[in-house]
Parts: sequence; structure tokens; C-alpha cells
Amino acid sequence: MTEPDLQRLLSEIDEQPTVVARLLERQRSIVRDLAQATRQRDPRAIVLVARGSSDNAAVYGRYLFEVCNRRLTSLAAPSGLTLYGSGPRLDDTLVIGVSQSGQGEDVVAYVRAARAQGAATVAIVNDATSPLAKAAECVLECLAGPELSVPATKTVTAQMTVLAMLSDALGGGDADRGGLEPLPAAIGAALERRAMAAELARRLAKGTVGSVIGRGFAFPPALEIALKLKETSYTRAEPFSAADFLHGPVALVERDYSALLVDVGGRSTEAATGIARAVQQRGGRPVLLRAARGDGPAGLIGLTVDVDVSEPYAPIVVLVLGQLLAVELAGALGFDPARPRGLHKVTSTR
Amino acid sequence: MTEPDLQRLLSEIDEQPTVVARLLERQRSIVRDLAQATRQRDPRAIVLVARGSSDNAAVYGRYLFEVCNRRLTSLAAPSGLTLYGSGPRLDDTLVIGVSQSGQGEDVVAYVRAARAQGAATVAIVNDATSPLAKAAECVLECLAGPELSVPATKTVTAQMTVLAMLSDALGGGDADRGGLEPLPAAIGAALERRAMAAELARRLAKGTVGSVIGRGFAFPPALEIALKLKETSYTRAEPFSAADFLHGPVALVERDYSALLVDVGGRSTEAATGIARAVQQRGGRPVLLRAARGDGPAGLIGLTVDVDVSEPYAPIVVLVLGQLLAVELAGALGFDPARPRGLHKVTSTR
Repeated sequence: MTEPDLQRLLSEIDEQPTVVARLLERQRSIVRDLAQATRQRDPRAIVLVARGSSDNAAVYGRYLFEVCNRRLTSLAAPSGLTLYGSGPRLDDTLVIGVSQSGQGEDVVAYVRAARAQGAATVAIVNDATSPLAKAAECVLECLAGPELSVPATKTVTAQMTVLAMLSDALGGGDADRGGLEPLPAAIGAALERRAMAAELARRLAKGTVGSVIGRGFAFPPALEIALKLKETSYTRAEPFSAADFLHGPVALVERDYSALLVDVGGRSTEAATGIARAVQQRGGRPVLLRAARGDGPAGLIGLTVDVDVSEPYAPIVVLVLGQLLAVELAGALGFDPARPRGLHKVTSTR
Repeated sequence: MTEPDLQRLLSEIDEQPTVVARLLERQRSIVRDLAQATRQRDPRAIVLVARGSSDNAAVYGRYLFEVCNRRLTSLAAPSGLTLYGSGPRLDDTLVIGVSQSGQGEDVVAYVRAARAQGAATVAIVNDATSPLAKAAECVLECLAGPELSVPATKTVTAQMTVLAMLSDALGGGDADRGGLEPLPAAIGAALERRAMAAELARRLAKGTVGSVIGRGFAFPPALEIALKLKETSYTRAEPFSAADFLHGPVALVERDYSALLVDVGGRSTEAATGIARAVQQRGGRPVLLRAARGDGPAGLIGLTVDVDVSEPYAPIVVLVLGQLLAVELAGALGFDPARPRGLHKVTSTR
């Protein structure tokens, strides 16, 4: 393991409270203007387009916009347009491209085509000079500073925070979501769990981490945590919604099979409790990853933090726990989490 | 392995040419009427809602509707509605629920809520007396006959065929898609590949089938083939779009790691060729699963059939190859593919 690379990854992870606080302070006004324009325009749908970790942030955005804003939201399959030259008509929609580098050719092509058809277009990017930023009418910068490690960390929490700010500004919906202000402190509290993450990693290193499972608002961070585990530790952990897991993959559970259950409080806690029981009944080991108010399901090993953040925003905090676990699991298995074999920082697909 | 269960699964697989031919004959008129009503209504979006294998059929429907009909299509996250009591506004949309049993509570609840909001609602079901059929205005029956094996096979190809018929009847778009008439014969030709599937299964049984990868129209069958492999053989094969695979999971490739590349001709062949190279460069083994016209990428082991079906409809044929491979791999590994441990035929999630 090269010490400087690992130190850089850890320092990017540690910057997250600062990055989120910066966004809440500096981007509130541009987000408010975009929300106001969107309410006036009342698009027939919101379409999110992204790849990789950014696509996991986009899945989070979809839950926010549908549950908290009651706006129909689709996750684009850009290959329709870029492979076949024929995507859906996008007039009268709001199309949001999400990309750290702003370079992904298919995401850029999709946003460009949408704009040509009269869609309102937004880029959520960390690089305001990137092709994606140029393709969209409105640019929401992530202000995360340079991210040099291959596994994306602070740029993903930044994307999620920008989406949460936009959802908050759009208003409407019934979900109890408190405010975004507690987020920086809550992420700070999650970062203090590194020793607990290391201890859990040592236990998990002996078996197989087979799946990462979440329901509702816990599903998007489950996707991203599974990707971090793959990138850093080469575990085959596959993400599932709790509902889909019971439709087939539960058959995989056996002794030494650990399932990580993501819990962000509220309704996601009930789902985590139910899956924990199903995994235990089959002789597997449920492991709780929880960031929420108060205590979670009793009697499970795991990595948890008690934070004053409501269910719709807690996914940002639980992801930080997952990042720590991914780094520590890589260490426990003897890999260098900062240098995934065969990966480059910018991946461009047409 | 219990011989009667396995025989039943194989006979359900073998019925597929008959089921598809029956749909093409008997359901053309109701599908044409629905397509005409949809063109008149011109909904702001199509929303597909499903779980498990039916959700993989729904992903296929999304590619068809977006690429071949240019209609914005969203894959619903029903948990927004069922967990949080707050889903997107669905007035002026076309909502299609897809379920073999028609019993899934969350799918039924979503369709019911959509109908109450004024959406046009359709049920694609194998049981016309089911709750989902009752919840929707229009019922498209799959006419697949009883499916008793736990792994769904003929009902999934039936759902895909109904979606392809609806897309065909909706018209529009630019994709070259020939007609649906060659499908029953092409599925018959795929079924004749059972010995080739058994031979490939013997080779794959020695290593790890790590992923099932497809791009564009090859992505939906990749999802369903990965699920069949899990249900029957307990392989951890994870499905990826070719684009997302290169964004991270490619780091998992090592010696003895097999990646199944799904190829349905046209643009999906190029993607399969590119991924094959990436897997080989990392010392892994690319394996081709192809149903398309003519020859595919050279020099790969695999399971292939030369059929006169265009790229948009070939996913139905390649899935049949994947079913055969799943059954044979289970046999090669000593499992009973017809009796996945811990699974029931009807899974209901709220």
C-alpha cells in the first residue's frame, strides 16, 4: 500500500463536512432561483442522466424529487440516444446531467440533445469549465475542490447535497425532512466512527460480503456503498432493494455470507429489520450500517451513528460510514483502496 | 435433483415458441386498440412498474418505448408510494404494471393510485383474475398457461413479447426492427442449442461467473440472465451495462473470472467486442451469449445462435439461451435448478 495515496483518499473523505457546509452557504441562492424557474415551468418530468457513482447520486435525486416533491422523475438510459441515435422526446422536461468531471460523452450528448429539443437543462459538476457545464443552461457547481483519488467520495456527497438542496427549494410533498443544516455536523460524527469501521472490517474480512441492501431512501446509498466496496476491496457485494432481494437473490444466503443492511431511519429501519430476519433464518450474517436518530434494530453487529438528520437526508451521512468501511475492509484484506487495479479517474463512454 | 421438478422447468422453457406464437396471433387486436388510444391520448410519459423478473421485462419495455417510439419512459420506484405514502403525480401518464401472478402489493398499489389520479392504466399479467388485472383499466394477458417452477421463464418471454407487440403497434422512431413474426422459429432455434449450453456450462463450472454484461438492447436480457444464474446456480453473477462496468467493476476481473457478454446484434455487438477486449487484457475470460443475424465477434467461446431477428427483438431470443445456460450450469454444479433454496413462487412486497 502506498502511504501517500491512502492519505490522500482519507483526506478527501475527511473534507466532506467542509464541502457540504460550503455548498449550503454558497449555492443556496442559485439553487433557489432554479427551483423557482422550475416551479413556474412545471416540466412534465425530471430526467436525471449520469454514470457510475454520479448515477447513484442521481438515484438519490429521484427518490427526493418523487417522494418529497411529487415530481415524476426518470433515470435516463443514455445509450438509446448515443448508440441508436433515437432517444425519447424531451421537450418540456427538466434534464439534469450529473458528473464529477463533466466529461462523460454520453451524458454530455444527452444534455445537448435535450437542450436542442427545448428541455430546461442543468449540469451538476465539479468542473465548471467541463463539456457538460458548457452543454447545460444552468450550472450547479459542487465546489468540492480537486478529487485525485480514483474512488469518488467527496464529489458524490457534494452531488447528493446539491440534489437535496434543489429538492428542499422545490418544496411540496409530505415527507418529514427537517432541514439540511445538521448535515455537516452529522457527517463529522460519522467520520469519528473510523475505529468502529476498522473493527467491523476485521470481522467481515473473514467471510463474504455478498450484498448491500436498502429500501426506499436507504437504496441509493446501498448502490454507492456496494460500488465503493468493489472499487477498493474487490468484494463482489451486489446492491439490492430489499424488495428485489426477496424475489430471488436471497437464495444466495448461506453460512459466512454477510449482508450489509443500510438504515437511514424511518421506514427504511423496518425494511432493514425484516431483511435481517430473513438473512438470519438462512444462516447468514446481517450487518447494520445505520445513520439516523436514536437506536436501530437491536442485536445486530454493525457500524452506526446517532445523528439528528431526517430520513430523506440521512443517505448522505450513511454513505460516509460506507466509505470508511470500504477503506478499512481494503486494509484488512491487504489491498490499496486508493489504487483500484485497472481503473482510471475519468471514464468516458459513448 | 428431483427429476419431476427439473422436467417441469424444462418443459416450461420448451413451451416458449408456442406461447410467443399464441400471443402474436391472439393479442394483436387488443394491443392495436391500446396503441391507438395511446397515440390519441399522447401521455406525457410511460411509467413501468414491476418487481423481480417482471422488472427486467419492464427494463426491456423502456428501451423499446424510448428508442423505437421516442416516448419518455420511467421505471417506477414503487416504494416512494408504498413506504412513504407520497409518489409522483401521475395524471396524464400511461402506467403499465407487469407481474406474472398479478399479486405484488406494491405494484397493485401503484397502479391503483395512478388510476385514481387519472392515468391510463394497463396490466400485463398471466392471471386475468388477479388483483393487478382488476386494478388496471386495460388487461393484456400473457396466455402462457400455468407456470409452476420457481424460476420464471415462459412468463418473462411472454411479458417481453407483449411489450414488443405494443411498441410495434405504437409505431414511430427510427430503429430498424423488422417484424415480430420470426420470433417463434428463432426461439425454437435457440432451444436446439441445449447441448452447446451443457458443454459451455461444464467449462464455466470450473471458474467464477462474475458478471453478465450488455449494452443498449442487450442490457435487459443481461439483467434477467444474471437473475436466472443466481436463482438456479447460486452464482454471484452481477449484471452491468457495458458503460457502468468500465466505471469501476472492471477492477474485479482476474484469472478464472468469466464475464458473460450478451450480444443481440447491431450496436450491442460493438459493445460486446469492446468489453471482451477489456476483460482479456485483465486476464479474465470473456464468454459470448449471442442471438443475432450472422457471425459475432471472432475467437470467443460461448453460446450463439444465428437467427433472422433484428436487434430490438433479439433480447427475447438471447434470454432463452441464458435460461438453458442457467439450467445446465446448475446441473454441472450439482444443484437443482427447479428448486431454489428459500424462494417461493409468489413474492409480495409492500
